Amino acid sequence: MPLAQALDDLQAFLGERLSRSKSDLDLHARSESYFPPTPPDAVAYPETTEEVAQIVRTCARYGIPVIGWGTGTSLEAQAQPLHGGVTVDFSRMNRVLDIRPADMDVTVQPGVTREALNEELRATGLFFPVDPGANASLGGMAMTRASGTTTVRYGTMRDNVLGFEAVLADGRVIRTGTRARKSSAGYDLTALLVGSEGTLALVTEITLRLHGIPESISAGICAFPDMTAATNAVMETIQMGIPMARIEFACAQTAQAFNAYAGTAMADQPHLMVEFHGSPESAAQDAARFAEIVADHGGSRFQWSSKSEERTALWAMRHNGYYAILASRPGARAVVTDICVPISQLPRAIEETQTDIAASGLPGPILGHVGDGNFHAILLIDPDKPTHLDIAKDLAHRMAERALRLGGTCTGEHGVGLGKKAYMQAEHGEGWDVMGQLKRAMDPQNILNPGKLVRGN
Amino acid sequence: MPLAQALDDLQAFLGERLSRSKSDLDLHARSESYFPPTPPDAVAYPETTEEVAQIVRTCARYGIPVIGWGTGTSLEAQAQPLHGGVTVDFSRMNRVLDIRPADMDVTVQPGVTREALNEELRATGLFFPVDPGANASLGGMAMTRASGTTTVRYGTMRDNVLGFEAVLADGRVIRTGTRARKSSAGYDLTALLVGSEGTLALVTEITLRLHGIPESISAGICAFPDMTAATNAVMETIQMGIPMARIEFACAQTAQAFNAYAGTAMADQPHLMVEFHGSPESAAQDAARFAEIVADHGGSRFQWSSKSEERTALWAMRHNGYYAILASRPGARAVVTDICVPISQLPRAIEETQTDIAASGLPGPILGHVGDGNFHAILLIDPDKPTHLDIAKDLAHRMAERALRLGGTCTGEHGVGLGKKAYMQAEHGEGWDVMGQLKRAMDPQNILNPGKLVRGN
Repeated sequence: MPLAQALDDLQAFLGERLSRSKSDLDLHARSESYFPPTPPDAVAYPETTEEVAQIVRTCARYGIPVIGWGTGTSLEAQAQPLHGGVTVDFSRMNRVLDIRPADMDVTVQPGVTREALNEELRATGLFFPVDPGANASLGGMAMTRASGTTTVRYGTMRDNVLGFEAVLADGRVIRTGTRARKSSAGYDLTALLVGSEGTLALVTEITLRLHGIPESISAGICAFPDMTAATNAVMETIQMGIPMARIEFACAQTAQAFNAYAGTAMADQPHLMVEFHGSPESAAQDAARFAEIVADHGGSRFQWSSKSEERTALWAMRHNGYYAILASRPGARAVVTDICVPISQLPRAIEETQTDIAASGLPGPILGHVGDGNFHAILLIDPDKPTHLDIAKDLAHRMAERALRLGGTCTGEHGVGLGKKAYMQAEHGEGWDVMGQLKRAMDPQNILNPGKLVRGN
Repeated sequence: MPLAQALDDLQAFLGERLSRSKSDLDLHARSESYFPPTPPDAVAYPETTEEVAQIVRTCARYGIPVIGWGTGTSLEAQAQPLHGGVTVDFSRMNRVLDIRPADMDVTVQPGVTREALNEELRATGLFFPVDPGANASLGGMAMTRASGTTTVRYGTMRDNVLGFEAVLADGRVIRTGTRARKSSAGYDLTALLVGSEGTLALVTEITLRLHGIPESISAGICAFPDMTAATNAVMETIQMGIPMARIEFACAQTAQAFNAYAGTAMADQPHLMVEFHGSPESAAQDAARFAEIVADHGGSRFQWSSKSEERTALWAMRHNGYYAILASRPGARAVVTDICVPISQLPRAIEETQTDIAASGLPGPILGHVGDGNFHAILLIDPDKPTHLDIAKDLAHRMAERALRLGGTCTGEHGVGLGKKAYMQAEHGEGWDVMGQLKRAMDPQNILNPGKLVRGN
């Protein structure tokens, strides 16, 4: 039995750090989403790059799948094993290795979470901006090409990863990128790995770009008579080039869920939540320009504050959006989906989606990072009603097709995982075959997260 | 003879747009740099994507090399054929296909030059910022991962290409990316093609991100007592997060060359040339903060202006830097090299380079995009002195090794071409082998710009 032999070999150098306990297998069988659990055969907890390489070499020898694991906060089940194998849990590789304030970069192990990193950075005046909401690991965020609320200003993981150390499918260790801010020296292997969902390599070190904590941060919220007014305000704000640090949309249903969950008193209307970074003067100027746009679109008086408690409360509310919405229907489960469209198509994409959800009878609040043209529907289903999951999947399906029809993408930030693989052919055409060619070139045995991202299962 | 047959087949559908004239072959045999010319066997002038695909399919059938060509302004001879074959000159594919102001993006054919694009954009209030100096084609800029003076603010081609239409080595046509501002849907084929120097595909359409023309642009110049003071001022400016749109270094020799070429009266000292984009208030504020840093480092009074004539004159001077330096030694030829280092290593990298050049006896002015940690040496050689080229190559060699030793890259923006291939192993280690695996996966016959970028010739 190759599996039994592989696990014996792994145990020989990992000892207790190779686990086959039921609780460990169960934990690593699931994501935060609705997909049925699929456990690995074992979970390895490496502590060094060399151990990761040895795990991969061992699995390669026996043809056993290897799946990377960060914090398990994925929404598309990227880290669920489809064919068993060994899950490599990076929670023990969670050290910040080197902070270089003069160069505004940092090298971390993949198990460091974004909040832990920002905690360590606190004394430096620098921060890492990419913020998908969950306290995800930076390895997982890199592999998903995560983004979130601050992308409109600071970019996604694509823009903020300078380089990797990575273990290839045959156990070789490579370094991609340099610490220079740009390079024209060959294929961009860093960008190829960002968003590869563990199918091309396991990353063991990540060098990230940092940003200066702005002198002044102010944030605010305002309500709009309807969704079209809100999204038109977003479009105009982006087109005017006002340097928003965040610009988030919450539909009326979401606002009501916030009220119930956090005791706020938001109007039963769509809202925008925004943040400005800069000097006190520039932030005030940006806020004034934004307030004019809000007024032009019939929005409520735009109230903003640079007090840190008020800001923190605002974004805590936004970050708890998923949980607030879940709590609005006790016992419900959520099918979460995300799409991203060109900004000019955003009003239409949201309007059509809302109409479609309303017709389905399911509650489906919408919220999102509308400055990027990216939004999510959180479709609430009753687990006791078997038709609900199918209705929700149909809605998600039409959202993905709508995004493609409008020139966008089937996933702005949650990744392909299990939920979006069905759209890869439609989105990429023969480009999807090229992805398969690249995968086979780098992992001819198909041991790295098999069944994900490229054609075939 | 496969070549003769291939050319017959090409002639059948290209007619006079397949050229074998000596002047055409000579023109496509060289770059702007010192490499000896190497002509193709023929030059094709396609007008449509389908014609490009048919050219590639024809060459694939006979195993004939295919080399893409933009404007020939490359400094590392990326577009020089090493093994003959057919050069695909994109000068007839020079249409701006679709400007979408609401989405701030544009789709162009690869033969459009950056100046032609900005001319067409003039009425929209938008511009394309990447500016390598030469009026290069956007296809060439994408394939080189070009950058330039504005990268510190607007990024390189990596950051500004949203997607491609591209012809693969077997003639298939793919589309990469979407018009959404971000996506997590699979491998980033767009980023893989940016900087691939025509070795993975020929791009036939490019969708580019545009930016709003800032309300106010101001620019200025100041002199420093020595290079260390100037580069320390750059470091501090970047670390303070002052949003510079350009921050360029010119050494004392360069300043003297400007004086002789353009009749300016710059001091015989190192200079910084900078630009600020924003509102009139923010630009004034940024300029004031920068002026303080300049004063702290002993710089001359920082003089700036928002008048467009003065700005234009300043950047015309900077853009003519190469020609001004060439003109400073009549009859001289130039070996131009570029490296990029982490910003903290910039003073050391420039200092060691200047010392090395001084010891060599060759004139070698230094200038560059120091906000990115990127600079160039323009090593002037007398073509009648055979030792000069070797001395210059030795200096360039030590610059590349120095960049790698300091955590940087052997080329920040000129690309690999012929001059930097020797450093790919040192810079990427086994990562260079991975690039070879990717190349073989996408071009198993090795017909796309053979001999470039990956191992082997």
